[in-house]
Amino acid sequence: MEKLRERIIKDGIVKKGNVLKVDSFVNHQLDVKLIYEMAFEWKQRFASKPINKILTIEASGIGIASIVALVFDCPLLFAKKSESINVDGEMFVTKVESFTHQKMYNVMVSKKYLSSTDRVLIIDDFLANGCALEGLIDLCEQANAQVEGIGIVIEKGFQSGGQRIREKGYALESLAIIEQMDDETGEIKFRK
Amino acid sequence: MEKLRERIIKDGIVKKGNVLKVDSFVNHQLDVKLIYEMAFEWKQRFASKPINKILTIEASGIGIASIVALVFDCPLLFAKKSESINVDGEMFVTKVESFTHQKMYNVMVSKKYLSSTDRVLIIDDFLANGCALEGLIDLCEQANAQVEGIGIVIEKGFQSGGQRIREKGYALESLAIIEQMDDETGEIKFRK
Repeated sequence: MEKLRERIIKDGIVKKGNVLKVDSFVNHQLDVKLIYEMAFEWKQRFASKPINKILTIEASGIGIASIVALVFDCPLLFAKKSESINVDGEMFVTKVESFTHQKMYNVMVSKKYLSSTDRVLIIDDFLANGCALEGLIDLCEQANAQVEGIGIVIEKGFQSGGQRIREKGYALESLAIIEQMDDETGEIKFRK
Repeated sequence: MEKLRERIIKDGIVKKGNVLKVDSFVNHQLDVKLIYEMAFEWKQRFASKPINKILTIEASGIGIASIVALVFDCPLLFAKKSESINVDGEMFVTKVESFTHQKMYNVMVSKKYLSSTDRVLIIDDFLANGCALEGLIDLCEQANAQVEGIGIVIEKGFQSGGQRIREKGYALESLAIIEQMDDETGEIKFRK
């Protein structure tokens, strides 16, 4: 999505360790107008899919997925994170490793809100190693819900997550895929 | 807001300890159509205010505030929670007590995204004792940003937060105010 790539070039900041900061418009302050346009972009790309639920993970995915749910005219469900394992039988639970925080945590959704009738579009802000995304896919599998598609704002194409998810056959639509970035020059190269 | 009160009666579940569960439409699964209508209700109630930024706190406020920001045509900023105090000088930080989790945590926003030019509408899902809300107000004060209004989905009118915030002179608009609830009968009484 050209407009998103331009905005990343303009306002994204490349930090050491292949970190891209986009907290001025994606994940701390949110440019909701741009997100609204992204939602319509996904609406177009997933036009053939009978999507009836949006799924994301707290926290930074929620603001994006909420607007996507509005455009797709369906409910939003966000998975909750918890370090504790104090979980009753009412939840689907999966474990996700966070590389940023160097620990495992539980990701869960209530069994009441995810079931075999759900045709799910998973939405998240970033895709890098794919661990969080695979956690959300696992929750859908536990619920026998169908993953109709995955919409990502920014994919780090130089990490393995995107390739692995596509090889599994999922319809993954990342609106910007970064091929390479350089924290010394600040240069960002996108995949064509 | 009549439609919200009806929905709370229909789908809210009263639990012991004055807990109201609305996770089927407000804070786990979100009925974004209803939230869109709530946003327009606030737009009407705050029509005279020159609001140019929406502020909320992660996680469950974000999905609501994101749609509010879309309707108000301005950016959303969400404050982040952290238990650690590993914070650099680039953030405004305040401390908030969580009664649910029985601990103190830090709430913070980047100094880049909150300043004296901001006319802020604070949005959150619940107001009970008001601690989280006062934390957000404190962040605005640190930034010399003007709090033009506060929009709450559900206020627990039998707890002290709402009264204290109104006495301080803030324009607080709660779309449903619960006067009383009974976990044995499930009855919920709203303020007229």
